[in-house]
Amino acid sequence: MQYKTYQITESYSVAGLNLVKKDQPKLGPNEVLIKMKAWSLNYRDLLVIKGIDAWKPPVGRIPVSDGVGVIVETGSEVTSLVVDDRVAGLFFPNWIDGKMTDAKLTNPLGGKVRDGLLQEYVVLNENELIKVPAFLTDVEAATLPCAALTAWHGLMEKGQIQPGNIVLIQGTGGVSLFSVQFALMAGAEVILLSGSDEKLQMVGQMGVNHLINYKRFPNWEDRIMDITNGLGVDHVVEVVGGDHINKSIDAVALDGTISIIGLINGFKGNINTAKIMSRQVKLQGINVGSKEMFNRMNKALEIYNIRPVIDKVFAFEEAKEALTLLESASHFGKLCISV
Amino acid sequence: MQYKTYQITESYSVAGLNLVKKDQPKLGPNEVLIKMKAWSLNYRDLLVIKGIDAWKPPVGRIPVSDGVGVIVETGSEVTSLVVDDRVAGLFFPNWIDGKMTDAKLTNPLGGKVRDGLLQEYVVLNENELIKVPAFLTDVEAATLPCAALTAWHGLMEKGQIQPGNIVLIQGTGGVSLFSVQFALMAGAEVILLSGSDEKLQMVGQMGVNHLINYKRFPNWEDRIMDITNGLGVDHVVEVVGGDHINKSIDAVALDGTISIIGLINGFKGNINTAKIMSRQVKLQGINVGSKEMFNRMNKALEIYNIRPVIDKVFAFEEAKEALTLLESASHFGKLCISV
Amino acid sequence: MQYKTYQITESYSVAGLNLVKKDQPKLGPNEVLIKMKAWSLNYRDLLVIKGIDAWKPPVGRIPVSDGVGVIVETGSEVTSLVVDDRVAGLFFPNWIDGKMTDAKLTNPLGGKVRDGLLQEYVVLNENELIKVPAFLTDVEAATLPCAALTAWHGLMEKGQIQPGNIVLIQGTGGVSLFSVQFALMAGAEVILLSGSDEKLQMVGQMGVNHLINYKRFPNWEDRIMDITNGLGVDHVVEVVGGDHINKSIDAVALDGTISIIGLINGFKGNINTAKIMSRQVKLQGINVGSKEMFNRMNKALEIYNIRPVIDKVFAFEEAKEALTLLESASHFGKLCISV
Amino acid sequence: MQYKTYQITESYSVAGLNLVKKDQPKLGPNEVLIKMKAWSLNYRDLLVIKGIDAWKPPVGRIPVSDGVGVIVETGSEVTSLVVDDRVAGLFFPNWIDGKMTDAKLTNPLGGKVRDGLLQEYVVLNENELIKVPAFLTDVEAATLPCAALTAWHGLMEKGQIQPGNIVLIQGTGGVSLFSVQFALMAGAEVILLSGSDEKLQMVGQMGVNHLINYKRFPNWEDRIMDITNGLGVDHVVEVVGGDHINKSIDAVALDGTISIIGLINGFKGNINTAKIMSRQVKLQGINVGSKEMFNRMNKALEIYNIRPVIDKVFAFEEAKEALTLLESASHFGKLCISV
Repeated sequence: MQYKTYQITESYSVAGLNLVKKDQPKLGPNEVLIKMKAWSLNYRDLLVIKGIDAWKPPVGRIPVSDGVGVIVETGSEVTSLVVDDRVAGLFFPNWIDGKMTDAKLTNPLGGKVRDGLLQEYVVLNENELIKVPAFLTDVEAATLPCAALTAWHGLMEKGQIQPGNIVLIQGTGGVSLFSVQFALMAGAEVILLSGSDEKLQMVGQMGVNHLINYKRFPNWEDRIMDITNGLGVDHVVEVVGGDHINKSIDAVALDGTISIIGLINGFKGNINTAKIMSRQVKLQGINVGSKEMFNRMNKALEIYNIRPVIDKVFAFEEAKEALTLLESASHFGKLCISV
Repeated sequence: MQYKTYQITESYSVAGLNLVKKDQPKLGPNEVLIKMKAWSLNYRDLLVIKGIDAWKPPVGRIPVSDGVGVIVETGSEVTSLVVDDRVAGLFFPNWIDGKMTDAKLTNPLGGKVRDGLLQEYVVLNENELIKVPAFLTDVEAATLPCAALTAWHGLMEKGQIQPGNIVLIQGTGGVSLFSVQFALMAGAEVILLSGSDEKLQMVGQMGVNHLINYKRFPNWEDRIMDITNGLGVDHVVEVVGGDHINKSIDAVALDGTISIIGLINGFKGNINTAKIMSRQVKLQGINVGSKEMFNRMNKALEIYNIRPVIDKVFAFEEAKEALTLLESASHFGKLCISV
Repeated sequence: MQYKTYQITESYSVAGLNLVKKDQPKLGPNEVLIKMKAWSLNYRDLLVIKGIDAWKPPVGRIPVSDGVGVIVETGSEVTSLVVDDRVAGLFFPNWIDGKMTDAKLTNPLGGKVRDGLLQEYVVLNENELIKVPAFLTDVEAATLPCAALTAWHGLMEKGQIQPGNIVLIQGTGGVSLFSVQFALMAGAEVILLSGSDEKLQMVGQMGVNHLINYKRFPNWEDRIMDITNGLGVDHVVEVVGGDHINKSIDAVALDGTISIIGLINGFKGNINTAKIMSRQVKLQGINVGSKEMFNRMNKALEIYNIRPVIDKVFAFEEAKEALTLLESASHFGKLCISV
Repeated sequence: MQYKTYQITESYSVAGLNLVKKDQPKLGPNEVLIKMKAWSLNYRDLLVIKGIDAWKPPVGRIPVSDGVGVIVETGSEVTSLVVDDRVAGLFFPNWIDGKMTDAKLTNPLGGKVRDGLLQEYVVLNENELIKVPAFLTDVEAATLPCAALTAWHGLMEKGQIQPGNIVLIQGTGGVSLFSVQFALMAGAEVILLSGSDEKLQMVGQMGVNHLINYKRFPNWEDRIMDITNGLGVDHVVEVVGGDHINKSIDAVALDGTISIIGLINGFKGNINTAKIMSRQVKLQGINVGSKEMFNRMNKALEIYNIRPVIDKVFAFEEAKEALTLLESASHFGKLCISV
């Protein structure tokens, strides 16, 4: 059998992606064959496709980490999954549970070492897959592996936010909107920053308590101090990165936490390290998460029927258009692809 | 000025409580005078009034730990409170923050060492008081110091429950109903046990996911295993105590937690200690909480306007009727007193 | 090739163990063949051999969970181990890392479901093995999988003991002596209970700060209160179990922890549950541990060259004598077997 | 009675400090009079005396946060201390226990708001004092309030280091040498950086496992990777601050922690925030600690008779010489003053 797959070419660009035909590989004893149903895109997919810095893959790499499909065939020794199970791939296929290690971190899907999922069919080891909640559509479930799990890991697993906490969330990208949903679910109060009144209005409808347009209030950290009676917020979901972290340091409470999960503002920043010390701020880097965390997140999603926010769904053949829209950063919610 | 106060007499019984007149004491420099507005009753108040075991106070003791009032006068050096502030007394007046110590535990209000609040006026040190959320009525706020704080401490401070957790809550007393509200607020799934279909229906209206009448299902631990796909619950709020803890051990998940916050079934129990070991169960005793926890709880209450469940409100002169109803254990929510 | 192995017979007794010859199984692609070098015995091995309650295995089961050997052959797809690696089996072969689950707990070596290691050669999956510290002898390394890991898990992973903590350790069995070594290594003060002055003297030479002969001081909990200025100890390693836990509850500090790791006094106890509540005691069951914990323990052993305490080493042919001595409970340190 | 005290003058310099006479204030009911015995100096005292940035105090301020003395008189309502008790002042006099708050952080001794201890006699509230371990000399005990407590807080309270962890410690100042002692006491392996072979030799005698002269190995982060088999260290005590944090980020393990406790390299740094994210590094600011932590530290010191490292002791009249030597940063251990 032959099937279609996207590949990165020497041009290292969205426009340069090739759609090629591939022969289906033979299944190993612990592998399964998955007919893909839906994918979702992350900013990191662009870094890989464009070959930025440490993300640069070899030519021929298949991009995109996040996708959902249905199992159509299982290897001879597969025990944990059966045909017709609906599964997502793990962003870090080796990170099953416990603490992160170098071995678990080495081969994310759609990165330097391993192919991704932007293919009609995919072969993966049974351990590298997770069943997705039944109440979600394929497209919705496809948004979970990277964006949702990152938000969950930062706020719940490491952040341990609690009812009564105040959480500052930046922007309306995938991780940010999942953070909104998880923070509200966990009983926290949410302050959201966006540069668009239209997006702020949409977030307001999700139940967010405080909305700030950072274009209108460039010194938004002062407004946050007003909102919090001068105390600052308990947790910041920092998606901008670089120098921007200083504004988060100014907005966070004594002993508060800043989850660093994005770097759209650059890989370095001139940081106020003295204030980190004097106000006992905690910065914690978050890099997606483990299958064990994913399972806990799925349980939480199921209890309250939390549905991911989808901006637009493209056809498999329109993958380049989807990636181009992702680059423009004008979307609200996840950009997805569906067969 | 003279004011009325209840006192425990040699009869050590609800019926034997005396309503007497007392002269107002002079304020020390760090003390405030509070005109009481409302009180709420706890099972522990009965243990003190009846002089059970370690709870037996000297004759003349003023009972009741929980109450709310308004400050009418402040000592010369009081800095944290002003006249007209609405405050509750702390169950453990010395437990401001940090870990429990013997010194912090020694003199709960309305116990062996210190008088309680069932008086028209009360004098307390400014540190022994906490401001209550403005959106609550006096009666509602009076329910917080013991029952709500115990539930909060068990589930949130020590229990660290998270969205997706499943929490088993026993009964519909004060701590149990606060536990329901906090667990739901924290994104957990709740299973509630009661012996009354009528009460179960009322709890169902609060959003509880699973309701079990333990009279109809005496082996309710088996039903819980069904509900949880054989995994058990993550957290149990154990209010019965004694042997009953074994049923909780049977219903809890591997590595799960049982918060021991009640003892209506006795002070001892024949416990399955081998199962505690083999399934790595954690039993944690919870004894009310600190002012620091109380402040965190107040923030959480304010964010979602959580209102305590009140069963019935009595007049100050009807305090004995209120305590008698408490003994019957037929109520749903807190029994309160109001001026 | 044929090799010798012990098997449990219908007599379910130490005397009834059979030494039989077995054909070497063929290696699967992820399996390795290990030439066994040394074993160590645990109280739990006796429960299995005697077929007590939940521990009763089928006839023919090979007993003993703990052993060390050298790899002599590797399956075609083994990547993490090579010939000549010195390895121990994992007590719970499936518990690699993360939290305990039913699936991880189901098949301990030498139990109801899986054969143990009391064989000249053993075949195991590469994931079910862990390399042991090079500075330890075979016999020393053989003591780690059950007793050492249980002590480590209770005190360090779950207990999080810290310098300045006071730890009460009961007896001089395997878990107890490892607990002594780990507690001292972690900067804690240790109080040890034993019924033998001779054993107390030996423990004193290990650096233990306080020694109590519980036969001479049956109310040893009172002496512990004296030693701790009335505060109690921060952590108890409870190896006796049953009613005996009440003495630990009387000896532990407010908010203190009791690790339940033994049950030689029975599977149930009439426990003072009211005191658990009022003094906020935490009881935590400990059931061995994961490979991830084992790795952390190995690092700690290596830093300070901690050597397990060995009482006596028997030849492979003397395994029954070793088990009989274990039953007598007169040893100090681990009873081991060596080829 | 009159006594001598140092005061900061308009010159904001060590040379400009005045030694003046002051009348003893009257004791309030909760205050005690302390005859000072010894002081120790911290880098932060220089920031205050020189009036750097946020540290600039009003003219007339008495400097120095750390000191020990003996109580010679107690106010009428003092209950926790008696005459002849030997006490140290708390760096943050209001931070008794629980989490840091703005109110607890506002008035450190010898800072903008409150006078320090460089006086012959001092009056403090009983709560602002802590008894010091009896086995320490006055000078030794005087080193605890700032440097030792900061090291303890970073490594033990927030850092929760454990046996088997590897800790990187920078330099041989006060916090660094306490960190060495605490890390070794807690069973960790220590790597120490210094620019002086002489100091490295002295640290080696304290039991430190690995010594690196950063002048000879400017890329010391590479050597650390060699020492740790490419894994990096579990915890860094970062005393340099600013850009230097990047070297610590390069030297720390996945999910490792960097305690930021110094800023001698400046208040800002151009930080590799992308690496914080990808390797899940945790940066935690540490600002001294609470009285509750101080008590736990004292217990730990007592168990193993940990003695602070003292470089040189000056007379009260030589305080300026001591501060001048502190500026030169050539000392090994604490610089102290004694009457």
